[in-house]
Amino acid sequence: MTTGGSTTADHLRAALDGPWAAVREEARIQLADDRFTGDPNLDYKAARARVLDQMKAIAGMGLAERGFRRENGGTSEPGAAVTGLEMLAYADLSLWVKAGVQWGLFGGAVENLGTERHRDYITRLLSLDLLGCFAMTESGHGSDVANLETTATYDPATQEFVIHTPTPSARKDYIGGAAEHARVAAVFAQLITQNENRGVHCLLVPIRDEHGADLPGVTTYDDGLKGGLPGVDNGRIVFDQVRIPRENLLNRYADVAPDGAYSSDIENPSRRFFTTLGTLVRGRVSVGGAAAAGARVALSIAVRYALKRRQFSDPDSGAETLLLDYRSHQRRLLPLVAKSWALAFAQNDLVRRMHLVQTGQDLDPSAQRALEKRAAGLKVAQTRHATRAIQECREACGGAGYLTENRLVTLKADTDVFTTFEGDNVVLTQLVAKELLTSYSDEIRDLDALGWVRFAATMAGDVVRKRSGVRQMIQTLSDRNGETVDEADLSRRSVQLKLFADREDYLVRTAAHRLRARAADTGPFEAFNNAQDHILAAGTAHIDRLVLEAFIDGIADIEDPEARALAEDVCDLYVYSLLEEHTAWFIMHRFMSVERAKAVRRGVNELVDRLRPHALTLIEALGVPEGMLRAALLEDASVFERA
Amino acid sequence: MTTGGSTTADHLRAALDGPWAAVREEARIQLADDRFTGDPNLDYKAARARVLDQMKAIAGMGLAERGFRRENGGTSEPGAAVTGLEMLAYADLSLWVKAGVQWGLFGGAVENLGTERHRDYITRLLSLDLLGCFAMTESGHGSDVANLETTATYDPATQEFVIHTPTPSARKDYIGGAAEHARVAAVFAQLITQNENRGVHCLLVPIRDEHGADLPGVTTYDDGLKGGLPGVDNGRIVFDQVRIPRENLLNRYADVAPDGAYSSDIENPSRRFFTTLGTLVRGRVSVGGAAAAGARVALSIAVRYALKRRQFSDPDSGAETLLLDYRSHQRRLLPLVAKSWALAFAQNDLVRRMHLVQTGQDLDPSAQRALEKRAAGLKVAQTRHATRAIQECREACGGAGYLTENRLVTLKADTDVFTTFEGDNVVLTQLVAKELLTSYSDEIRDLDALGWVRFAATMAGDVVRKRSGVRQMIQTLSDRNGETVDEADLSRRSVQLKLFADREDYLVRTAAHRLRARAADTGPFEAFNNAQDHILAAGTAHIDRLVLEAFIDGIADIEDPEARALAEDVCDLYVYSLLEEHTAWFIMHRFMSVERAKAVRRGVNELVDRLRPHALTLIEALGVPEGMLRAALLEDASVFERA
Repeated sequence: MTTGGSTTADHLRAALDGPWAAVREEARIQLADDRFTGDPNLDYKAARARVLDQMKAIAGMGLAERGFRRENGGTSEPGAAVTGLEMLAYADLSLWVKAGVQWGLFGGAVENLGTERHRDYITRLLSLDLLGCFAMTESGHGSDVANLETTATYDPATQEFVIHTPTPSARKDYIGGAAEHARVAAVFAQLITQNENRGVHCLLVPIRDEHGADLPGVTTYDDGLKGGLPGVDNGRIVFDQVRIPRENLLNRYADVAPDGAYSSDIENPSRRFFTTLGTLVRGRVSVGGAAAAGARVALSIAVRYALKRRQFSDPDSGAETLLLDYRSHQRRLLPLVAKSWALAFAQNDLVRRMHLVQTGQDLDPSAQRALEKRAAGLKVAQTRHATRAIQECREACGGAGYLTENRLVTLKADTDVFTTFEGDNVVLTQLVAKELLTSYSDEIRDLDALGWVRFAATMAGDVVRKRSGVRQMIQTLSDRNGETVDEADLSRRSVQLKLFADREDYLVRTAAHRLRARAADTGPFEAFNNAQDHILAAGTAHIDRLVLEAFIDGIADIEDPEARALAEDVCDLYVYSLLEEHTAWFIMHRFMSVERAKAVRRGVNELVDRLRPHALTLIEALGVPEGMLRAALLEDASVFERA
Repeated sequence: MTTGGSTTADHLRAALDGPWAAVREEARIQLADDRFTGDPNLDYKAARARVLDQMKAIAGMGLAERGFRRENGGTSEPGAAVTGLEMLAYADLSLWVKAGVQWGLFGGAVENLGTERHRDYITRLLSLDLLGCFAMTESGHGSDVANLETTATYDPATQEFVIHTPTPSARKDYIGGAAEHARVAAVFAQLITQNENRGVHCLLVPIRDEHGADLPGVTTYDDGLKGGLPGVDNGRIVFDQVRIPRENLLNRYADVAPDGAYSSDIENPSRRFFTTLGTLVRGRVSVGGAAAAGARVALSIAVRYALKRRQFSDPDSGAETLLLDYRSHQRRLLPLVAKSWALAFAQNDLVRRMHLVQTGQDLDPSAQRALEKRAAGLKVAQTRHATRAIQECREACGGAGYLTENRLVTLKADTDVFTTFEGDNVVLTQLVAKELLTSYSDEIRDLDALGWVRFAATMAGDVVRKRSGVRQMIQTLSDRNGETVDEADLSRRSVQLKLFADREDYLVRTAAHRLRARAADTGPFEAFNNAQDHILAAGTAHIDRLVLEAFIDGIADIEDPEARALAEDVCDLYVYSLLEEHTAWFIMHRFMSVERAKAVRRGVNELVDRLRPHALTLIEALGVPEGMLRAALLEDASVFERA
């Protein structure tokens, strides 16, 4: 199982580590230190203090600098930044969120929406001399950012903006850092100047003095205990006519002159809004990555436990049976391992694309928007996977799984909010689907329901394949064409990819048709709402197809033959499991015969059988160092390892 | 919507409250008190102390006495006991578990396995003068109780049992009460006398003195923090040659004479073991009930929130849209509400059956065993439902759902362990399926895999219908026979029930066939393991059919026509949602055409549309008093209720 001193697991881990493998290797060493591990026995006040100490230790490592441009004191390596910070998730998700808020969200807002005049903020936030928070969400509006209620009204008499919370529902809420540590908030508010509302903009608003007391006009509240993430001090902020200098507007895309005149290079207000939000895509990229990292930790614990723990005697041999030798246990864990592989390749691909766009190496005008859609889709896929996989791992470890010392409940609690933060998963899936329906057309991106129902009605068939290049990939993979999908060998990648693409294509086309057919009768909202489950299914099918493509691409880079053969089996398990999950759809829409559906089910069983002997290798390849698992049930060999 | 002063919701709540409606009504008043509510801000040490105080307040209410026979100082109302204690789950699940451990598990062991000589224990445990724990599970064996390792060796010289933990994996683990409060443990151990192992028996072992210090030879450990249930002091116990009097053996089914001679009325050791465990069925009945209660609280919060919270403007009207007006939101919550209804009827039916068996009103020799199977099956269905429904509710409330003040994360964390306690859900589903395969045959219940593979091989077809009376129910419901299922009107109950019964019947028969076909080739364990997913599916199908029957029976008792019509729609939604979930299976096995499958999907959409205006009524019928919801997001109207 070794070639040239490397084991199969080494080859596979290198492949799954992706373009920033070196960053991951370095982080595995740096973060193995006890001081970066979460301590679930601390109360939330103490946990917050501990995470702040951990942040200080990390500030010296250069992780954060990678995320900023050279002129701002960084090293301009966004791909490395996201990858390196993701590794914090192996140690403690509270620490990952705290770092993400400071350097990713707050820092990212200043970096991407600010200009030279805000450079000093970046110097100070990098070193933690200045702690910030990202005050976008309000109690009344999370998903619908365009309708935030907080106002920033320009007063030319004093050349100040007046920040105000006009209603109870306009309070900023769930803001990481707002309860205790943040001194400055990047506040998203409706900018009003010369009696005109110019839409949502971001402004830097000091909220606490150097002793941590609320500044005049600012009232902060503690959100208190949450489902998890005890080390993050989420809170609320209410502004009562708080005045800040004109220069605190982050003015990359729009500015207000001393006299109150508004100017922007982007004339269309809606496009300006989406451009603003689009620069913050790194947040979604990162949340998906951290969720997937959490799932990898959980699967590493549960599979390793299933390779030690025995229960019930095998009547043939008299010996107690290892959990992972039960078919049901293989079926509950191994397809999730395969999905973790798939998503790891997809995340690496996403980070690479983000890096190319953000470093100016990909100048295709549609690249930014494609990146946003892909980031939204993979955020959904990865956070859903984390919720499901960690829950399954918890249950697969029985009573032991419920003890905090075995970490699974902490992983579940910490990642749980990821399904709704940086965009609710339903809303994001819909966003992906809308993009599909509007075929990336920039002009109508910000249309209301009426507008894009009209647009969708004009779509021609087969748009998915035409625009995405999937047809070419299928062509490249195909060795024999002309056969029907149902006759073809399902173990061939081209056939698998065809099935995934067919599902996506069919769902998109029929959703468009359904919208057109109903819009005239019921009005666009009703038409949209009536087809909502259909539209969401189209979004999900698209994400599934992108993930499979990334898996196929990822395997292509593996040179070691044994490693590659194993990866091909894992890819098959990912495909077969997903086909099994959607069997009803495939049969109902005549893409699969009943016989083929039965073959898919048998295929899953055959694949878990075949992969069972390699279970530990599959887990080692996921790359969570054994020393970072920190689950008591893996350490207390005398209790759980019996012959 | 009112008849005779009662609203539709009142009629429906009365139906869902079931045979012990009066007990539920009384508890709603008694438990509304703040002192019974959980306080998530306490650390776990303080939470444990608070729950102990709550127990003392409850001890005076007479709830616990219902669970004990009159000769033991109780009132012999087991149905009322389970129902009344279940209501504690609305207030705080830690309190429910603590009460369940003391009066249900520990008290139940003494009540059901002890004799007159243990009567004093019951007097003391009722009043909380004596706190006990139920020491069955060991670190090495939870599911496989027959292979527990702790020993109770009889020493005739001193007429004592010596309780001992022979290996690290034999330590008692996850034992509620063992960490702090319990003074006596009901210990399950291998009874050895006259050099012969007589199998697992239960003995009362003092573990702490009156000051709470471990007694000589006993070492207790704290399991520490868990995923939830902070008010329950779970711990470990290790015994080092601890001596207890001979009389501490709970000797209802077996005894050891002073000279060490073993005697039992039940000769077959395996049957003795299962009889012993069977008396403890109330634990499983109760866990399922509490899990379902937790799901009802979560759905009450999420649906009420979805009736207040608005997000995104309807372009037709300009007004922001209520969450529950979105199709996707209806589809994620309303089928879960329907399932909660179904399970409430099924739980009431189960408790009624348990009451009849345990009060000697049902003397059918097969009743106890049927009860155990039903309890196992419904425990699985209800705990799975709770895990899924509470997670969905948490996500459906967005960021607010993640704050502890909105209770959903606490409900999730507290109920999470229910999927594995009182029997792992996979093991229990398998137990149900094995019972189906062995057709309730008492003689072979305790066969090893080889034995029941042989037995299953002798089975004739259609056994499910023959033995269960489902055929008669279908006959009674049918108005027109002779038509095929696919032509028949799917909205008819007889057709729905046929589909459910067909699925169960087919799965059981084909599993038996598959076992027979393979056993000769591969040996019984391999044959069993190869078919494990098939066997589990048979168990699940059986449970689904029982739940539907209970729903149909429950509706039959509703007299108010409006209430009944609404309940029929809810039952349809339960059926259609479940058929949709299993569409692939029904099509692949030719029980459903593709056209019918599409009609099922449309049916779910039509039903959520039709039920949407009644959403609040459906929730009120579930019977969680608004005052017991205690979710801040329902109370702060100014923040979330905007026009």
